Amino acid sequence: MVVNTISDQDVEEMFELARAVALEAGQVIRENFYKDKVVDTKMSAADLVTETDQAIEKMVHTKILAKFPDHKFIGEESTHETHKHELTDDPTWIIDPIDGTTNFVNHIPEVCFSLGIMVNKQTVIGIVYAPIKEELYTAKLGQGSYLNGEKLQASKIKELKQAVILFEGGASRDEQILQDKLKNVHSLFTNARGVRSYGSGALSICNVAAGRGQAFFEYGLHIWDFTAGNLIASEAGAVVTDPSGAELNPLRRRVLVGCSAEVAQSLSKVLTHLDMGWD
Amino acid sequence: MVVNTISDQDVEEMFELARAVALEAGQVIRENFYKDKVVDTKMSAADLVTETDQAIEKMVHTKILAKFPDHKFIGEESTHETHKHELTDDPTWIIDPIDGTTNFVNHIPEVCFSLGIMVNKQTVIGIVYAPIKEELYTAKLGQGSYLNGEKLQASKIKELKQAVILFEGGASRDEQILQDKLKNVHSLFTNARGVRSYGSGALSICNVAAGRGQAFFEYGLHIWDFTAGNLIASEAGAVVTDPSGAELNPLRRRVLVGCSAEVAQSLSKVLTHLDMGWD
Repeated sequence: MVVNTISDQDVEEMFELARAVALEAGQVIRENFYKDKVVDTKMSAADLVTETDQAIEKMVHTKILAKFPDHKFIGEESTHETHKHELTDDPTWIIDPIDGTTNFVNHIPEVCFSLGIMVNKQTVIGIVYAPIKEELYTAKLGQGSYLNGEKLQASKIKELKQAVILFEGGASRDEQILQDKLKNVHSLFTNARGVRSYGSGALSICNVAAGRGQAFFEYGLHIWDFTAGNLIASEAGAVVTDPSGAELNPLRRRVLVGCSAEVAQSLSKVLTHLDMGWD
Repeated sequence: MVVNTISDQDVEEMFELARAVALEAGQVIRENFYKDKVVDTKMSAADLVTETDQAIEKMVHTKILAKFPDHKFIGEESTHETHKHELTDDPTWIIDPIDGTTNFVNHIPEVCFSLGIMVNKQTVIGIVYAPIKEELYTAKLGQGSYLNGEKLQASKIKELKQAVILFEGGASRDEQILQDKLKNVHSLFTNARGVRSYGSGALSICNVAAGRGQAFFEYGLHIWDFTAGNLIASEAGAVVTDPSGAELNPLRRRVLVGCSAEVAQSLSKVLTHLDMGWD
C-alpha cells in the first residue's frame, strides 16, 4: 500500500483551487436560481437533477484535472451513471454540484455547492458554499472551520430535551422506509425540543457547526452530501458518527452529527437505524 | 353596530407606527439573540417564553396606546395569562413579539416580530420583521406586499406534486395530536415534492408569499402567528383559507396558505383536519 504524504503546502494549493471553483460554482447557481429549470428525475419524483447540476460538475472536473491530473474524483452527477464510487487512498475530490436541488428548482434559498477532499481516506479540506444566502463555509483538518471568515463553534448543549434536531426526509418514497423515518420524526417530537427541515443535508450539517441547532442525521444520503460538511462540523467541535454510534463509514449512506458527544449518544439511542445500502 | 370608517391617511399613520415598532422590536431581538436566555415553559417543554418576548410586547403596547389610546390589542404574552382574546370591529393590533421562540433560544435565525392590524375584523396592515435574516415584510390591504421594498409574488405552480410544503409540528405533545400530524407528514411525502420546517409559522407564510415554497399549513397556531403573514401572502397572490377549504376564522387556530387555489385545494384534500380549539 502506498501512503500518500501530504504537506501543508499541498493542502494550501488544493484549498485555493477548491475555494476558487466553489465561488465559480456559486456564481453559476446564482445566475440560474430564478430561471425556470429543465428537470429530470433520477430515482423518484423527489430526486431531481437539472442542467445546472451537470454543467457545474463538468466545470469543476475540468479545472481540477488541469491542475492535479492524477487526482481522483467522485461527483454526484458524473459517477451516478456508472454507479462506481471507488474510494482509494489517492487524493479524491468529492463533489455535490448542487445540494438541495429541489430547493433550487423551487426557488428556496437553501442551496449549496459542496466539495470535500480526502487523502488516505481522511477528509483534509471541506468547503460548502450557499450563494443565495451568501454563506461560505470552509475547513482544513486541524485548523478550525469558518463561516465567511468567522470561526465556528458548535452548540455546547448536552441534553437532548434542549436540542433542536435537523432532519431530512430524503428522496426515497418506499413505504417501509417512509414508515421508519416517520417513527424517527415521532421520536424527535417526544424526546427533543424541536425539529427543523431545510432540504439540504450539507447546509444542515453546517448549521450544526454554526450552533444553529444541536444535531443532524439522515439515512439515505451520499458521500458527496456530507464529506465537506462533516469536516466543517468536527472542526467546530461537533461529533460525527454513524447513527448507530459506530465509526462513520463514508460509503454507508448515513450520518449523525451532534453538537456534543452527549447529544449524539442520546439521539442515537432514540432512533430507528435504517440500512440504506452503500455508495 | 358601529362600523369603523378608515381613511387612507389613517392606514398610513398606523403603518408608520407599526413599521417603527417592528424595527425597534427587531433591534431588541438582535441584541439578545446570542445571549443565553432565561426560559419559561408555557404549555409543554416545546412551548417557550423568554424575558425578551415579554419586554418587546410591553414596549409595543406602550407605544401604540400613546398614539392610539382607544385601539385594542391582542398580544401573545399579555393576553396569554388572562386567556381573553376578544376580537371586535375596533382597530386591533395583533402582536407576536417573537415568533419562533425556540429558534430564538437555540440561536437559529428564523425568528421574527409579527404585527397585524385588523379593522372591522379585516386585516389592513401586516408587518413581519426577521432581524437576524434582515428581512422586513410589509403589506397594506389592496396595495401589494413587499420584502425589503421589493414586490412579492407567490409561486404560480398549480400541481401539488410539484409543490414544496412548509409544515410546523407545533408545541403540543399530546399523543393523538402527534399521530394525526404525522399522518399529515406522511401524506406530504407521498403527494408533494418535499417538506420543509423552519420553526416559525409567520416566516413560513412569508416564504410562501416570496415564492419560496408553494404552501404552508398548521393546526394549533394562534391569531398572532398568522394575521400579519396572511395579508402579506394574499397581497402576493396566495390563497388563505381554513385547512378544510372553508373561509378562515381568525380565532380558530388553524390555517392553510397556498400559492394558488389549485395547490390549496389539492393540499386540503390530502390532510387530516385537526380541531385545535379556539383563541
